[in-house]
Amino acid sequence: MDENFLLSTPTAEKLYHGTAKKLPIIDYHCHISPQEIAQDRKFENISQIWLGGDHYKWRVMRAGGITEDKVTGDAPDREKFRAFASVMPKLMGNPIYHWSHLELLRGFGVEEPLSLENADEIYDKCNEVLKGYSARSLMRKFHVRALCTTDDPIDSLEWHEKIKEDPTMDIQVLPAFRPDKAVNIDKPGFAEYIGELSKVTGRKIATAEDVVEALYGRIDYFGAHGCLCADHGLDYCMFENPDKMDAGRAFSMAMEGMLPDKKLVDTYKTFVVAACAKKYAQKNWVMQIHFGCIRNANQVQFASLGPDTGYDAINSQSGVEHVAPLLNAFNENGGLPKTILYSLNPTDNTALATIMACFQGGGVPGKIQQGSAWWFNDNRFGMRSQLTELAANGVLGCFVGMLTDSRSFLSYTRHEYFRRVLCELIGEWVESGQYPADEGVLGKFVSNLCYQNTRDFFGFEVL
Amino acid sequence: MDENFLLSTPTAEKLYHGTAKKLPIIDYHCHISPQEIAQDRKFENISQIWLGGDHYKWRVMRAGGITEDKVTGDAPDREKFRAFASVMPKLMGNPIYHWSHLELLRGFGVEEPLSLENADEIYDKCNEVLKGYSARSLMRKFHVRALCTTDDPIDSLEWHEKIKEDPTMDIQVLPAFRPDKAVNIDKPGFAEYIGELSKVTGRKIATAEDVVEALYGRIDYFGAHGCLCADHGLDYCMFENPDKMDAGRAFSMAMEGMLPDKKLVDTYKTFVVAACAKKYAQKNWVMQIHFGCIRNANQVQFASLGPDTGYDAINSQSGVEHVAPLLNAFNENGGLPKTILYSLNPTDNTALATIMACFQGGGVPGKIQQGSAWWFNDNRFGMRSQLTELAANGVLGCFVGMLTDSRSFLSYTRHEYFRRVLCELIGEWVESGQYPADEGVLGKFVSNLCYQNTRDFFGFEVL
Amino acid sequence: MDENFLLSTPTAEKLYHGTAKKLPIIDYHCHISPQEIAQDRKFENISQIWLGGDHYKWRVMRAGGITEDKVTGDAPDREKFRAFASVMPKLMGNPIYHWSHLELLRGFGVEEPLSLENADEIYDKCNEVLKGYSARSLMRKFHVRALCTTDDPIDSLEWHEKIKEDPTMDIQVLPAFRPDKAVNIDKPGFAEYIGELSKVTGRKIATAEDVVEALYGRIDYFGAHGCLCADHGLDYCMFENPDKMDAGRAFSMAMEGMLPDKKLVDTYKTFVVAACAKKYAQKNWVMQIHFGCIRNANQVQFASLGPDTGYDAINSQSGVEHVAPLLNAFNENGGLPKTILYSLNPTDNTALATIMACFQGGGVPGKIQQGSAWWFNDNRFGMRSQLTELAANGVLGCFVGMLTDSRSFLSYTRHEYFRRVLCELIGEWVESGQYPADEGVLGKFVSNLCYQNTRDFFGFEVL
Repeated sequence: MDENFLLSTPTAEKLYHGTAKKLPIIDYHCHISPQEIAQDRKFENISQIWLGGDHYKWRVMRAGGITEDKVTGDAPDREKFRAFASVMPKLMGNPIYHWSHLELLRGFGVEEPLSLENADEIYDKCNEVLKGYSARSLMRKFHVRALCTTDDPIDSLEWHEKIKEDPTMDIQVLPAFRPDKAVNIDKPGFAEYIGELSKVTGRKIATAEDVVEALYGRIDYFGAHGCLCADHGLDYCMFENPDKMDAGRAFSMAMEGMLPDKKLVDTYKTFVVAACAKKYAQKNWVMQIHFGCIRNANQVQFASLGPDTGYDAINSQSGVEHVAPLLNAFNENGGLPKTILYSLNPTDNTALATIMACFQGGGVPGKIQQGSAWWFNDNRFGMRSQLTELAANGVLGCFVGMLTDSRSFLSYTRHEYFRRVLCELIGEWVESGQYPADEGVLGKFVSNLCYQNTRDFFGFEVL
Repeated sequence: MDENFLLSTPTAEKLYHGTAKKLPIIDYHCHISPQEIAQDRKFENISQIWLGGDHYKWRVMRAGGITEDKVTGDAPDREKFRAFASVMPKLMGNPIYHWSHLELLRGFGVEEPLSLENADEIYDKCNEVLKGYSARSLMRKFHVRALCTTDDPIDSLEWHEKIKEDPTMDIQVLPAFRPDKAVNIDKPGFAEYIGELSKVTGRKIATAEDVVEALYGRIDYFGAHGCLCADHGLDYCMFENPDKMDAGRAFSMAMEGMLPDKKLVDTYKTFVVAACAKKYAQKNWVMQIHFGCIRNANQVQFASLGPDTGYDAINSQSGVEHVAPLLNAFNENGGLPKTILYSLNPTDNTALATIMACFQGGGVPGKIQQGSAWWFNDNRFGMRSQLTELAANGVLGCFVGMLTDSRSFLSYTRHEYFRRVLCELIGEWVESGQYPADEGVLGKFVSNLCYQNTRDFFGFEVL
Repeated sequence: MDENFLLSTPTAEKLYHGTAKKLPIIDYHCHISPQEIAQDRKFENISQIWLGGDHYKWRVMRAGGITEDKVTGDAPDREKFRAFASVMPKLMGNPIYHWSHLELLRGFGVEEPLSLENADEIYDKCNEVLKGYSARSLMRKFHVRALCTTDDPIDSLEWHEKIKEDPTMDIQVLPAFRPDKAVNIDKPGFAEYIGELSKVTGRKIATAEDVVEALYGRIDYFGAHGCLCADHGLDYCMFENPDKMDAGRAFSMAMEGMLPDKKLVDTYKTFVVAACAKKYAQKNWVMQIHFGCIRNANQVQFASLGPDTGYDAINSQSGVEHVAPLLNAFNENGGLPKTILYSLNPTDNTALATIMACFQGGGVPGKIQQGSAWWFNDNRFGMRSQLTELAANGVLGCFVGMLTDSRSFLSYTRHEYFRRVLCELIGEWVESGQYPADEGVLGKFVSNLCYQNTRDFFGFEVL
C-alpha cells in the first residue's frame, strides 16, 4: 500500500497527488460525538478508539471465528486486538482490510500488514503514538475543515454551543437534524418520545399536525445553531397519500399503544416527512434520505447486545418504487428541497439514478443527488458502481462526493480511499480515450467532487 | 476520440476497421417520422435537429443547473446550444458525452470537445454544414439500408406509401405495428381510441374479441405495406389468465369510463397481447416487448410539458416474473412468434436471459432474443452487461444487435458506438484466451451481429 | 486455451501452477449416481456421456437453432454430436464453450476448437479414448478424493453400502440428505411420498410433527452411513411463523388432496425445515439451502419431456427477504447449523452477503457461507461477482469454495475452471497493490479455498 495505492494509471497519479490529496475534508454526514469534540477526548489504547464501537470490524471478527468475549465481551483490550489481527489476513477483498491499514499507516506510521504474528508489537507502538492524540488533533491531522454531526430534534445542542464558544476551535462543527424517532410510529418508544418532544417544545402534541409544528420549531432552533441539513433514516422508502385525517388516526392509535396497519403507518410517515421536506426547502437545507435497511436482523443477538452491534443488513424490499411518488408529493406541495438519496441496496442504483433525474431542475446544479456508496457498499467495488451508474444517467460533475457516516476519529482515511478510487476511475476513462486528457479540466473536475461541490451545495461558510 | 476510440486491443481494431465499420445499418426500431423522410426535411440550425426533441439531453441540462427556458422554453436557439455546451464537460462517464461528440464529428467535422468556450464557433460551423443536409442525405451518409418506423394501428401509412412510390428512394423504410393504445385499458383516452379504431376499421367494437378482430385487420393492412414486426410497450410485464369473459368485462367497464381493478386490467391486457402474438406468429413477424418503465414520474412537469419530455424512469417493479407465464400463454395458444424481450431494468438481465432460454426451439436460431441495452442502459456499461449476460446464458452468435430507438437523423452514430463496444469486448475475450484468435471466424461473428442476423431474423429483403 | 488459460498475471500463474492445480478435489455437492460408481459404469460413446443428460447443452442447442430430434430425440448419437458441434462457435462468452473444451482437452486430448468441420474426426477420437474409461477411472484421473451424492430420505443407500464394502474403492463417497419431497406440500405427489416415507420408517405419519419424527429417523440412518450434510432446494425462500397447529392443518389438507393457501403452505414448510435445521445442528451437519428457481417454465415442453430437461430459470421473486427471519427461527430454536446459502438470482448476492453476516458467530469460522456461483451463475462472470461481493462483506479466507452440482463424470474440470478464476482474481488484487505479494500467505489462502476449508467445514476424514 504505497503512495500510489489504487492509482493504476499516470493520470490517476497526477490527479490524486496534484489535486485530490491536498484538499481539506468536509465530512457532511457522520456520527461523531460533539461532546467528545468539545471536551477534546483522549483515548487509552488502540482497541478503545479502533475496535470499541466499530460494528464493521465486529462482523468480520465473528465471521472469522472469533468468540463474542473478544468482540464485544470482557476479554482484555490486548486480546481483542490480537483476535482482530488474526482475522486480518483472511480479509482479502474487504474494504476493512484497506481502511484498517490506511488508519494504521496514516495515524500511527505502521507500514507492515497486521497479523497475529506482529499484533503485540503493533499494539504497543500504536498505544505509544496514541498518547499524543486527541479528538481535535486527529481531525486537524486529517485536514478536516467542517463536519456535521447527527442530532435528535430534542437535543439541546449544548455541546455544539460549547464548541462554538471555544475560541481555540478552528474546525466548523455543525448539527444535523435527524427526526427519525418522530417518524417511526411503528417502533417501540414512539409515545414516550412524543412526550419528550412535547416537553422540549413546550407545546401539547395531540395530532399529527402538532408533531409537524413541534418539529418545525426544532428545525428553526437547529437553524439558529447553523444547521444546514437533515437526515431521514428509513428501513424502506414508503409512500401513501399523506392524508391529514388518516395520519391523525394513526398518531392517535400509536399514542394509545396500538400498532396501526401498514397503510396507516405509511400514511403518517409520508405526512410527516413531506411536511419536513417543505420546511427544509424554505430554509434551503439539504435533505438526506437513507433507505433500504434491515435493522437488528438477528433477534437473539439484538436481545443480548442491543442495536448498532453489527446485526443490520441490506433490505431487498427497499421501497425504491416509492421514491418517485414521494418526491412528487414533496414537489406538488411546493416543497422539494435539495435532496440526497441513498439506497442501501446496490441493485437500486440504476433505477434510482433515473428516478432522481426526473426531479432535477430549478437551475440548481445537481439538486437531487445520488448519495455516495453507503455502509455495506462503501468499498472500492461499490464506489465504482455508484460513480459509474450515476455518471451514465446523471451529471457526475455535480456530485457532492464522500462522507464517512462514522463514529470514529480515525475514519477520515475513507475520504482518502474515495479520492483514490475516484482518481483511479477517471484515470481509466481518460487513458482509454473516453474523456479528454486536459489537465486543467480534469483537475477542476476532481477538485469539485472532493471539496467545492459539497461546500457550495450545503452552503458551508469555509474557503 | 480518435479512430480507435474504445478499441482497446489490436483484435478490436482489426475487427472494427476490417469488418464492423464497413457494414450498412438496418435500424429495425426507431421513432423517425416517415413524413420527414417522404418530404426529405431540412433543418434550420443545429439546436433544432440536435436539441429540439431530445429528452436525453434535456435531462442532463436540468441536472446540470440549466433553467427550463433554455431547455424546452423560449430562449433563442443559440442560447440553448450554449447552455448545453456549458454542461458537456460535466458529463464525464455519460453516453451523451460520447454520442454528442460522435455526432459532431461524423456529421459536422467538429473535432474538439464542446464547451461554453467554443460553443458559438461550433454553433456557427454546424449551421453552415447543416445547409447541405436533408433527412435522406443524412441517412445515406450513415449507410442506412433499411429501417422500421413506429406506427399506430389506425395510421393510414400514407407517408410510407409516398416513400414507396418515390423512384428516387433507395432506402427501405417500413412501418412497425405498435398497438399500445388498444392495450392500455387503464390509461386516459382508451375509449376515444377504440372509437377511432372502430372508424378506421369500419366495424363495431363491443367486446374484447372485437378489439382483437379490429387489430387483426390492421395487422393485415400493415403486412400489405411490408411490415415485418410489432412492438408492445408495457410499463410492467403483466400476466393474468386471459379469460375471454373477464377481458370483456374489463373492456365494458373501460368503455363506460370506469377503471377496472388491476387483476381485470391485466386480464384484458394479457388477452389482447396474447391474441396479437398468435397473429404475429402466423405472419412470421417479430414481436418486440418493451417493459419496465415509469412514465411521467414528475407530475408537476408532466402537467406543464406533457409526455416524452424527460420525466420517465426505470420501473423496479418491471414484472419480469410474469414473462414466463406470458410466453407460456403464447406458446400454449400455439402462437409463440419470434420475440425480442427488453426490460428497462438492468437487474432483470440475468433472470431474463434464463427465462427466454426456456422458450427457444423450433429450429429457429435465436427465436427468443434479449434486446439490446435499451434507453437508460444504452451506454458502454449497459451494452457490455447485456452482451456479457446474454453470452453467459444464451447464444451470442445469434444476437440481432443494435437499434437506435431514436427520433433523430443524427443518432445513427449509436450503431458505431455499439459496434465499437462489441469489438472492444470480443477483443478482450480473444486476447485473454477465452475465444480462439481465428480471423475468419471472428470476422463472420462480428458481421452477423452487426448486420446479417438482423436481416435474416426480420426478413429484410436487402443484400 | 493453453496452460495459462485465464491466468492473466504472473501472480495468477504462480498460484495456480504452484498450488491450486495440484490439490485434490472434494466435490461436496453433486448429482452423480452412486449406482454408476458402485458398478463402475462404462460409456458407449461421447454423446452418451457428454450430451446424454446435460440440459445445459440442450438449452444452447435449442437456442442455436437445432431441432428437438437432435437434442433429446431419436436422431443418431453421431448426428447429435455434429449438431452440438455446429453451435459451438456461436457460444462465445458462454461457460459451456470453456467447460466443453476443457473436458475435451483433459479427458480426450482434443486440442482444437470443436466445430462442424472437425466434428466427425473428434467424435471418433473421443469414442476411441472413451473405451479406456470407467466412472471410477475418470474420478481418479481428476484427483477426486471425496464426494457427496444427493439422496432422498427414503433411499436405502444400498449402493453407498456396496461402495463402502468394496476394498478396491479409494475415494470417499458419502450420501447427502435431500428431503424436498417431504417439504414441498404444494407439489403433486406429496401424499404418495408421505405414504412411502411412512412405509420406509415403519411409523404412522398423521401430523406435521410425525413428518419431522420420520425425517429425524432417516437423518440418523444417513448419519450412520457417514452423511455430513443436507440440502434443501426451495423455489423461493419462504418464511411464516412455524406454528405447529397451522402446519398440521396444512398437512391434513394436503393429505386429503387439497392445496392449502400460500400462507399455510409456507407455515408447513418453515415448520419442517426449521425442525430439520435443529437436528442438523445437533449432528454438526452442514445445511445447504438453494433457492430462487422457476421450475419447468415452459409448460408445453414440460408436458412433453418432463422435468430437468432444460426449462428452468432464475426466479426474480427469490424470497431473499425471508432469509433473515428463517435463520432467526433456526437460531431462536437453538438450532442454527453450519449453513450454506445459495440464491440463484445473482442480484441477491450483496444483500445475502450482508444478511448471513448477521448470523455468524459461535467461534466457527465462516459458520454461514455464501455458496459458490450456482447453475446459471456458474461462469467466469458469475464466479467473479460472487467472490467479489462475498469478499467485500464477509471473510473470503473462510470460504469453502467450489462444487460441481453435476450429473457427469467429466465435469470435474469445473473445479479447474473455478481455481483458474480464483487465481486470476487474486492475481489482479495482488498486482494492483490491494493485497500484499507474500507468496506463503497467498499459497495458504488459495489452498484453503480450494481444499482445506471444505475438508474442515464438513469434516471429511481425508488428508
